[in-house]
Amino acid sequence: MVQPATLNNARRDFYERLGSLSMAPLWESLHQLVPPQPMPKYRPACWRYDAVRPFLMESGTLITAREAVRRVLILENPAMPGSACITPTLYAGLQLILPGEVAPSHRHTQSALRFIVEGEGAYTAVDGERTIMHEGDFVITPTWTWHDHGNDSSRPMVWLDGLDIPLVAMFNAGFAENGESEEQAVTAPEGTSEAKYASGLLPVDWKPARQTSPIFNYPYARTREALHRLTRAGPADACHGYKLRYVNPANGGAPIATMGTFMQLLPKGFASAPYRCTDGTVFSVVEGHGESRIGDTTFRWKKRDHFVVPSWATAVHQATDESVLFSFSDRPVQERLDLWRENRGGR
Amino acid sequence: MVQPATLNNARRDFYERLGSLSMAPLWESLHQLVPPQPMPKYRPACWRYDAVRPFLMESGTLITAREAVRRVLILENPAMPGSACITPTLYAGLQLILPGEVAPSHRHTQSALRFIVEGEGAYTAVDGERTIMHEGDFVITPTWTWHDHGNDSSRPMVWLDGLDIPLVAMFNAGFAENGESEEQAVTAPEGTSEAKYASGLLPVDWKPARQTSPIFNYPYARTREALHRLTRAGPADACHGYKLRYVNPANGGAPIATMGTFMQLLPKGFASAPYRCTDGTVFSVVEGHGESRIGDTTFRWKKRDHFVVPSWATAVHQATDESVLFSFSDRPVQERLDLWRENRGGR
Amino acid sequence: MVQPATLNNARRDFYERLGSLSMAPLWESLHQLVPPQPMPKYRPACWRYDAVRPFLMESGTLITAREAVRRVLILENPAMPGSACITPTLYAGLQLILPGEVAPSHRHTQSALRFIVEGEGAYTAVDGERTIMHEGDFVITPTWTWHDHGNDSSRPMVWLDGLDIPLVAMFNAGFAENGESEEQAVTAPEGTSEAKYASGLLPVDWKPARQTSPIFNYPYARTREALHRLTRAGPADACHGYKLRYVNPANGGAPIATMGTFMQLLPKGFASAPYRCTDGTVFSVVEGHGESRIGDTTFRWKKRDHFVVPSWATAVHQATDESVLFSFSDRPVQERLDLWRENRGGR
Amino acid sequence: MVQPATLNNARRDFYERLGSLSMAPLWESLHQLVPPQPMPKYRPACWRYDAVRPFLMESGTLITAREAVRRVLILENPAMPGSACITPTLYAGLQLILPGEVAPSHRHTQSALRFIVEGEGAYTAVDGERTIMHEGDFVITPTWTWHDHGNDSSRPMVWLDGLDIPLVAMFNAGFAENGESEEQAVTAPEGTSEAKYASGLLPVDWKPARQTSPIFNYPYARTREALHRLTRAGPADACHGYKLRYVNPANGGAPIATMGTFMQLLPKGFASAPYRCTDGTVFSVVEGHGESRIGDTTFRWKKRDHFVVPSWATAVHQATDESVLFSFSDRPVQERLDLWRENRGGR
Repeated sequence: MVQPATLNNARRDFYERLGSLSMAPLWESLHQLVPPQPMPKYRPACWRYDAVRPFLMESGTLITAREAVRRVLILENPAMPGSACITPTLYAGLQLILPGEVAPSHRHTQSALRFIVEGEGAYTAVDGERTIMHEGDFVITPTWTWHDHGNDSSRPMVWLDGLDIPLVAMFNAGFAENGESEEQAVTAPEGTSEAKYASGLLPVDWKPARQTSPIFNYPYARTREALHRLTRAGPADACHGYKLRYVNPANGGAPIATMGTFMQLLPKGFASAPYRCTDGTVFSVVEGHGESRIGDTTFRWKKRDHFVVPSWATAVHQATDESVLFSFSDRPVQERLDLWRENRGGR
Repeated sequence: MVQPATLNNARRDFYERLGSLSMAPLWESLHQLVPPQPMPKYRPACWRYDAVRPFLMESGTLITAREAVRRVLILENPAMPGSACITPTLYAGLQLILPGEVAPSHRHTQSALRFIVEGEGAYTAVDGERTIMHEGDFVITPTWTWHDHGNDSSRPMVWLDGLDIPLVAMFNAGFAENGESEEQAVTAPEGTSEAKYASGLLPVDWKPARQTSPIFNYPYARTREALHRLTRAGPADACHGYKLRYVNPANGGAPIATMGTFMQLLPKGFASAPYRCTDGTVFSVVEGHGESRIGDTTFRWKKRDHFVVPSWATAVHQATDESVLFSFSDRPVQERLDLWRENRGGR
Repeated sequence: MVQPATLNNARRDFYERLGSLSMAPLWESLHQLVPPQPMPKYRPACWRYDAVRPFLMESGTLITAREAVRRVLILENPAMPGSACITPTLYAGLQLILPGEVAPSHRHTQSALRFIVEGEGAYTAVDGERTIMHEGDFVITPTWTWHDHGNDSSRPMVWLDGLDIPLVAMFNAGFAENGESEEQAVTAPEGTSEAKYASGLLPVDWKPARQTSPIFNYPYARTREALHRLTRAGPADACHGYKLRYVNPANGGAPIATMGTFMQLLPKGFASAPYRCTDGTVFSVVEGHGESRIGDTTFRWKKRDHFVVPSWATAVHQATDESVLFSFSDRPVQERLDLWRENRGGR
Repeated sequence: MVQPATLNNARRDFYERLGSLSMAPLWESLHQLVPPQPMPKYRPACWRYDAVRPFLMESGTLITAREAVRRVLILENPAMPGSACITPTLYAGLQLILPGEVAPSHRHTQSALRFIVEGEGAYTAVDGERTIMHEGDFVITPTWTWHDHGNDSSRPMVWLDGLDIPLVAMFNAGFAENGESEEQAVTAPEGTSEAKYASGLLPVDWKPARQTSPIFNYPYARTREALHRLTRAGPADACHGYKLRYVNPANGGAPIATMGTFMQLLPKGFASAPYRCTDGTVFSVVEGHGESRIGDTTFRWKKRDHFVVPSWATAVHQATDESVLFSFSDRPVQERLDLWRENRGGR
């Protein structure tokens, strides 16, 4: 039925007068506000390490870790320039620390994960304990914990930083403080957390004081062995190959309340069934090479490359060699809010 | 120490080349990304019902509930024009339904609350049961439940809609469907949910299928009586007067996983101590009149007015008469993510 | 195959020598220790109030509440004489308090429930607050809380006491203390707990300090109304009629961690389907009359009678008039330990 | 004040008449029923392996595993002869399985733990998966899971069985079934559960179907290494030395809902501070030797000896050599029921 022009004019006039009271008509935007399915405003993207590494090394010549506080190149979603976001809820960046450098102690309500991409021997210190990092290790610096990094090795070290910066920003709930000294005092020998919390047993009278995992380094050697044993224990999942989630032993949940972290093995020649889910996910290639079709885009990837799969985009992964992929997303938050959905088959 | 111009130039050049790879230097934005404390980009605002009501009634002459699907005037934060947000995580609007009208059945993953501002006798139907709404009633339409509204009374009816639209949008996890018929079939007599779930007892073998409350109407008569009895039971809280949170009897949590809902009574002459918290909060005045200073802004309010207090803004409330305020925020989400903070004293 | 006598003798001799080391052969008792299904060593039983009341009143002439501390006639399972148990995990008794009497203040780790059988106007005080009790009220005195009772009315008052005494005894985890004064100081006006916790809302910043319900009187008027409304809301359950469980509003669980409490309405003429479950259950008849077949035993019952249904005994209830039954059992403990089972049909 | 004989007689007469109605006066037994502190009716006891082993081996000549179903010598508390209990809630026994024998498949609601005392190479099968057992391994057969045992090695094998038989018996909630075949079909390769659940990660989409741990063998090699690392990580606890609890990685709780399991290391020369708690505890000595004073009784112990500490009995342990003790108790149940207490200092 045709809308008489007069009514259109009346509405237009009405909308203008409404605006001056900071009001707007829902009916003109309902469909965009409550879409039939997710319509992300961000894109798949891939950062080849071959292209990224020279920039990382150049950044080492342009600013010190001390001056930068954190010398990080942000991986910014190409559809969100200037946002410092890789997805609407997640931040990702590649951090460089050179031999002898220190990234000074601070703390913030944003939770951070570190996934080691290149090098070994640098440390992360959390709450008075240091852990030496190796390629493939997954390290957490939980919300509001003092943390600093230093490189006592002879090689540059690069890791992926994943933080919930955009999520915390949306809640306007971020707080931060700088430490009094660059490096926090070491109060516990290295390995204390692993000895106490990572054995499948827990100290008899220990009660967790927060949701985050008491383990702050999940070493790759152990994770890799677990993946290997999984391949012996049964068939691969059609969509995921062999996929595990990192766990907080104190409650069975995610080590970080705001970000889920995953490691998966794709057997040589594996081609996944199409799959999509509502958690936009950042991937870091740990081993092997292959390619992924994400929506209409295809990326070839190999060790140390990074790519992002947007919410509800259908992904298909193919592994040329046996490949291992680390990934993280906001899935634990979506699950707790009854928002998370997946579609096996990707339709 | 002065920065040599050459280094500045080298960095500028570096940043430009970086941008072409969708990368950016963290150190240039670290302080904005990880601020020392919340710096909301939105403002306190107040919508006086005297000013809003004529527009609501005019909207009734410009579009039908059927055509509009939901005839709502969005309360948009003046600092976020075009965003349809009252805070970065919350949507609020005032919905009008005229005698004889129907707002057709649909469902969406966004959760909605209705707080009745004016009129009585219209119904909300959820999952086959209708509830008649009265002023001050708090009604929920949980995530992914079919719901429709109709007004069989002889008066226009206006309520506050509160939804988690921006939150769900950030997760890109929204789904929606329209019902096959305008009004869903009624399969349970009115009062079924209240009889089963609102007595302080629960059906012996009932297990909740979801996090949201099985009660979908929390009537004002009962809430008001609870507030009245609280005033007899002890002194007012210095910051909140007498303040209660609505509860899901199945788990003691919020009736809606993504939004906390509150009702508070301010005694006649009560002046609150300064207070701030990280959950930006939307208020609806149910009874009385008074004024609130929010940061540097002061609003006088009375029955049916609405106002918003941003995250970490210090608020002081004064009640000229005994006043009752309904409010909602994202506090339950922040609490579950260990993000929520408050400051009694407002400093 | 026949067992040679020599072997039997050798075993007998072996068993004797074993005994001297406090050891015994499992294979001689395995079947009793791990039975195919529950084989309770206790019986159904019924206590008619007509028969019990004269003894209660006589007890009032033989001992004071003060001297007795608690003037209670224990309802002892006839199959467990001297055990003070009505089931292997539960204690039940009928307590008499006469006008002007006081049952002095004490506390113990055993949790207690009171269900009011006759009279009104006496109080129970818990943690500094008193509640006046009426017939049909359900009152709790949680583990390790100071409590005392007094009767300021002009009539004798009788209530059912239900405690987890045998359960706590088996764990050897019982502690008790007597108060310094007979009556604890009143520090909160009557109705404080109900005002704060029983409205369907909770104080905004209140966090439960223990598992037990913050409500300590669930008044019959409200429970009865809930049952009445349930009968309007849908059909009766074939086994239970209309049955509700009392709930702790802070967590949706049982008001007392060790005992589940229930209230059910059987419509006039209702005959239940056979039913059995692993929680031995104590019933108190609140209204009406009827009869119950429990295993091979049938009891006729009316208002104020009490009876017990053993674990896994098949029960069939018939209501001559509309009847209301209160009951309690250890079901919450069995459910938390994954032990609870039921069989609808009773086979 | 003296009680007149007439009143005594009246009461005695009253009690007799009461008895005929299956009632009893609480006031005559209140103090025993609600004691000021735990007064266990069971005793400390110790079973020296030197004395027990000959009986175990003799049992192997008197009955086959097949005929016995489980060839176990029950460790029966000397104060509860004929009860088959080591504490009022726990059963313990030593099971012998000879080379080539099979303990046939069955399942029961009682949960069982196995702690390997002597030998290696025998298997336990649970839900279609076998695990080979070694000294010091902790193996669970969760409630209602099919399980069988076999010894394909060339040596006899002995383990400690710990079950919640008395607890389940008190609830009258025990069910049991025999398998159709002696040995259940093997449907998963050995190591499947460990690969899936024991790495600190969990399968991405796995949701636990029950409370019990998905890991069914916690190998000693790993537990021992954890204890060793703990000794490097900090000082010993004054009461416990270095003590860990076994954990279900799916929820951070006990691997078995009804029984807590613990492993502790006492450094050479360690003398514990006096300690008591309400959970009666069964100990199995894994390494070293020393002595324990429990109440007024002192036991010297060495590898493979077993002893029991009653509820609330003060225990002091001294280690002549570095010693390792496994133990189990009902602590998780008491904690969930808010009943558990401890006293460091033992007073």
